[in-house]
Amino acid sequence: MRPIARLGGNAINARVVIHGGIAYVSGIVADDKSADVAGQTRQILARIDGHLADAGTSKYRLLSATIWMSDMSKKDDLNKVWSAWIDPANPPVRACVGAELSSATTLVEIMVTAAID
Amino acid sequence: MRPIARLGGNAINARVVIHGGIAYVSGIVADDKSADVAGQTRQILARIDGHLADAGTSKYRLLSATIWMSDMSKKDDLNKVWSAWIDPANPPVRACVGAELSSATTLVEIMVTAAID
Amino acid sequence: MRPIARLGGNAINARVVIHGGIAYVSGIVADDKSADVAGQTRQILARIDGHLADAGTSKYRLLSATIWMSDMSKKDDLNKVWSAWIDPANPPVRACVGAELSSATTLVEIMVTAAID
Repeated sequence: MRPIARLGGNAINARVVIHGGIAYVSGIVADDKSADVAGQTRQILARIDGHLADAGTSKYRLLSATIWMSDMSKKDDLNKVWSAWIDPANPPVRACVGAELSSATTLVEIMVTAAID
Repeated sequence: MRPIARLGGNAINARVVIHGGIAYVSGIVADDKSADVAGQTRQILARIDGHLADAGTSKYRLLSATIWMSDMSKKDDLNKVWSAWIDPANPPVRACVGAELSSATTLVEIMVTAAID
Repeated sequence: MRPIARLGGNAINARVVIHGGIAYVSGIVADDKSADVAGQTRQILARIDGHLADAGTSKYRLLSATIWMSDMSKKDDLNKVWSAWIDPANPPVRACVGAELSSATTLVEIMVTAAID
């Protein structure tokens, strides 16, 4: 059996699960929810950078991303921050859709997978 | 080519797809939709236990979970049942967001992946 | 390190990412958004056929599909087109939920993965 490593998180979910050369990262939200969409997205991507580093990988090896926004009319604000973060030579596949999130001030949630080996 | 096994389901979707040592399970809803969020979540997790067993794995080898709820204000009700089911040493990564589901009485839908080998 | 191939798309997302014998396809929407749910679904599935072919695979090796609809009351319209497209011997796992999509006329978005090797 190939091993499974679980990093961080709590009894509800791991922050990162590693299996078969892939890092799966939980849906990440911003810590400071007083920030706007751009600010929350920046916080989330910085957290994802950290989680990917913990897993021994980086944004340069992203495979897929699912993004949920509480207000899709703010998608351009998200995309500006996203585009500045993504390596344009190595973008993941992506879906971005609207959804009610875990609190009224949670504006963005992002879940990614990345290759390790 | 690595083989693909498809278990259960119908002409629209398989219940479980197995490939490359991973079991992919379809989004599962409760059979008895008169139940509340806690009751529907219990039914779903019991069905997922069965599907994982059919695939030769179990909740102890979960990789990821996506949870959709028709009313995110009931997330605590879901989490109580979820936490009692999950092995706290082996939680998957997870995202839980609000969404309109397939009927007005469908309160929760859960889609998971788990490692087999 | 196993190689990652990225096909099409732009600096925000690749259209297809290939890694570890799996093709990940971005969430696909219809080009002609004046079409109804059935028409948009047909356009999307034709685009997915093309993306899978580019990746060296096909709908016969689908693993999973996530479908978002702006109006779940039209799910039967989607399912008719979906069922006619899917190989009934080789359906993927699937979840289909409601979500606000990227424009008011975007009625359906579909994201799939498929096995290559």
